[in-house]
Amino acid sequence: MSVTAAAGFRAAGAVAGLKPSGKPDVALVVNDGPRRDAAAVFTSNRCKANPVLWSERTTGDGKVDAVVLNSGGANCYNGPEGFQTTHASAELVAELIGGAAFDVAVCSTGLIGPLLDRPKLEAGIRAAAARLSSDGGNAAATAIMTTDTRSKEAVTHADGWTVGGMAKGAGMLAPGLATMLVVITTDAVADPATLDAALRTATRTTFDRVDTDGCMSTNDTVLLMSSGASGVTPDAADLASAVTAVCADLTKQLWTDAEGAHHDIEIAVAGAATEDDAVAVGRSIARSNLFKAAVFGKDPNWGRVLAAVGTTDAVFEPERIFVSMNGVQVCRAGGTQAGEPSENVDMSGRHLLVEVDLGAGDAAATVFTSDLTHDYVHENSAYST
Amino acid sequence: MSVTAAAGFRAAGAVAGLKPSGKPDVALVVNDGPRRDAAAVFTSNRCKANPVLWSERTTGDGKVDAVVLNSGGANCYNGPEGFQTTHASAELVAELIGGAAFDVAVCSTGLIGPLLDRPKLEAGIRAAAARLSSDGGNAAATAIMTTDTRSKEAVTHADGWTVGGMAKGAGMLAPGLATMLVVITTDAVADPATLDAALRTATRTTFDRVDTDGCMSTNDTVLLMSSGASGVTPDAADLASAVTAVCADLTKQLWTDAEGAHHDIEIAVAGAATEDDAVAVGRSIARSNLFKAAVFGKDPNWGRVLAAVGTTDAVFEPERIFVSMNGVQVCRAGGTQAGEPSENVDMSGRHLLVEVDLGAGDAAATVFTSDLTHDYVHENSAYST
Repeated sequence: MSVTAAAGFRAAGAVAGLKPSGKPDVALVVNDGPRRDAAAVFTSNRCKANPVLWSERTTGDGKVDAVVLNSGGANCYNGPEGFQTTHASAELVAELIGGAAFDVAVCSTGLIGPLLDRPKLEAGIRAAAARLSSDGGNAAATAIMTTDTRSKEAVTHADGWTVGGMAKGAGMLAPGLATMLVVITTDAVADPATLDAALRTATRTTFDRVDTDGCMSTNDTVLLMSSGASGVTPDAADLASAVTAVCADLTKQLWTDAEGAHHDIEIAVAGAATEDDAVAVGRSIARSNLFKAAVFGKDPNWGRVLAAVGTTDAVFEPERIFVSMNGVQVCRAGGTQAGEPSENVDMSGRHLLVEVDLGAGDAAATVFTSDLTHDYVHENSAYST
Repeated sequence: MSVTAAAGFRAAGAVAGLKPSGKPDVALVVNDGPRRDAAAVFTSNRCKANPVLWSERTTGDGKVDAVVLNSGGANCYNGPEGFQTTHASAELVAELIGGAAFDVAVCSTGLIGPLLDRPKLEAGIRAAAARLSSDGGNAAATAIMTTDTRSKEAVTHADGWTVGGMAKGAGMLAPGLATMLVVITTDAVADPATLDAALRTATRTTFDRVDTDGCMSTNDTVLLMSSGASGVTPDAADLASAVTAVCADLTKQLWTDAEGAHHDIEIAVAGAATEDDAVAVGRSIARSNLFKAAVFGKDPNWGRVLAAVGTTDAVFEPERIFVSMNGVQVCRAGGTQAGEPSENVDMSGRHLLVEVDLGAGDAAATVFTSDLTHDYVHENSAYST
């Protein structure tokens, strides 16, 4: 059900024909109220796509009536006409649902550069609007897929209120954020500031900790909309917790569907002086092509883990570092003590847990990545052709 | 001739049996003087191998009699016994050539973790010492190869003096520095401070600008030794220029022999506010797996170039960026003006010149990288097995 699990929301998906495959490529999520509070976070990439430039402005006042999303094109780096397409989409949605364009958020995903076919997009938006329903969550989640192999949806029910969400994203998953579009809805009553705090709490430890290929997208958007239709005003901490649960669920779905991956690698860093140190170390390992290629080869190469740790500014001494892979302690005290045999590490499954203890404090963090495979190279060398 | 092109040096290569292949794996370069001035730079990785820990200390006084290098093992993260092996190597070389262990530098390259077989290594060092000759440069350069497909040697002759050098390195090529071992020799007369200045001038714009896979090694060493045998004391600027020429030549040889690469990508960034900005932008593009995979697929995907630029802190406005590939201006004014058709870019050759103009100033820098290929994944997933 995803975005329509919470009361007060309708959604739909439709075929605009932006994707050569003819699969659904336009999604619409409408908040029927009674409230229309919202919060959003966007990519930190300084080269931003037109829909991000638009939505940053329109969500800034904490009010969003609807969001229209398309796959089949990023609408990015294509000049004034591209921005006008984004604007025209918002105007059309506003006209169809009765509202103002400035209260409509827009998201796009796909290839950077080309213009979107505006007549096709507008026809798709009209088709989606005609199909809006309170059980359209799955149709919307399906319409935003690109190289995703499955739709991503999550729901958490609380005491009289609900948080639901959908996401897309399979490549370019990196901090702040990934090529991900995420829409989260709730029927809880919450003002924009409370929603913003809940969303930032949630993304900091979920979407921001996925780093499948180190590449940061131009289009990332995570939008949280509240209808207030439940009439329940939860405690801010409970709301943050529920939003975090949905984001964590969607994060796991994104992580385990990364382009071309054969292993889902969970890098749990402990014993760090600070949480920032733990994240920096986890991210450095997650971005080591040599380590990621070794995992693809089922080689528990802890030397490449230490080499990646060594490139960070984190507090540590090499000879205090312990590394385990799937429970086998292959590196003890930075190699100064004999570790367990690497052959004991079972890497036949899809999940690999890499535990790194820096021996420098009590802070911890987990970063999620994927291995570097022939399929990754293939998918990303053939994408635009 | 490489390291023996300059007068006052002898070199040799020998088979110690550290490499399973039985190929040469120990090299020795001896400075016969009359002077023995030296300077060195090392990896900035904080997890350093035993030979780096040793050589940082022994080169600090600006005097080096000889350097012994081995392939077939990095001698890294293997505890006190590994460091003792490094120390024992230096002691043995000192005994064989008549000198002090503290004046012998040591370099190792190969797999991280395992101990080197000390008896084998010592027998190899004895064999190399017995074979030292003033035309042993090529034998030494061959003995330090790992996954290199060819030996790397360079020579520059100046007015009565010479600079020569050898290098190895094919993977883990990244800043500060790569998995590279480099020995440069000169018969010019120069004190350690002058050599140090020349070496740092040279490495800043050569080895430090190769970034084939973003991974930083634990063993990188660049050593410059001067015998003074020519009797000529060149101007410091001339010396720096000659050392830079040799380093640039070796850099190009390393870059164009990167593991698994199908394209040598030269990223020339201009119009930057500062040289640091230009380097940061070039490096960010060089580390974008998505861009590198696109190049492998012969896809001139400038959107991925802009996405990489956008992740930096450099001064720029997206709509002022121009991008050319092999002379075809595929992106004009950040996509706000129509670029030349991507189909016009000929990517059939091995070399790809990517020119990025940030439109923010007059500074420029060039970074050298490789594409991300199936062969890279294959080589690095199978390396230790």
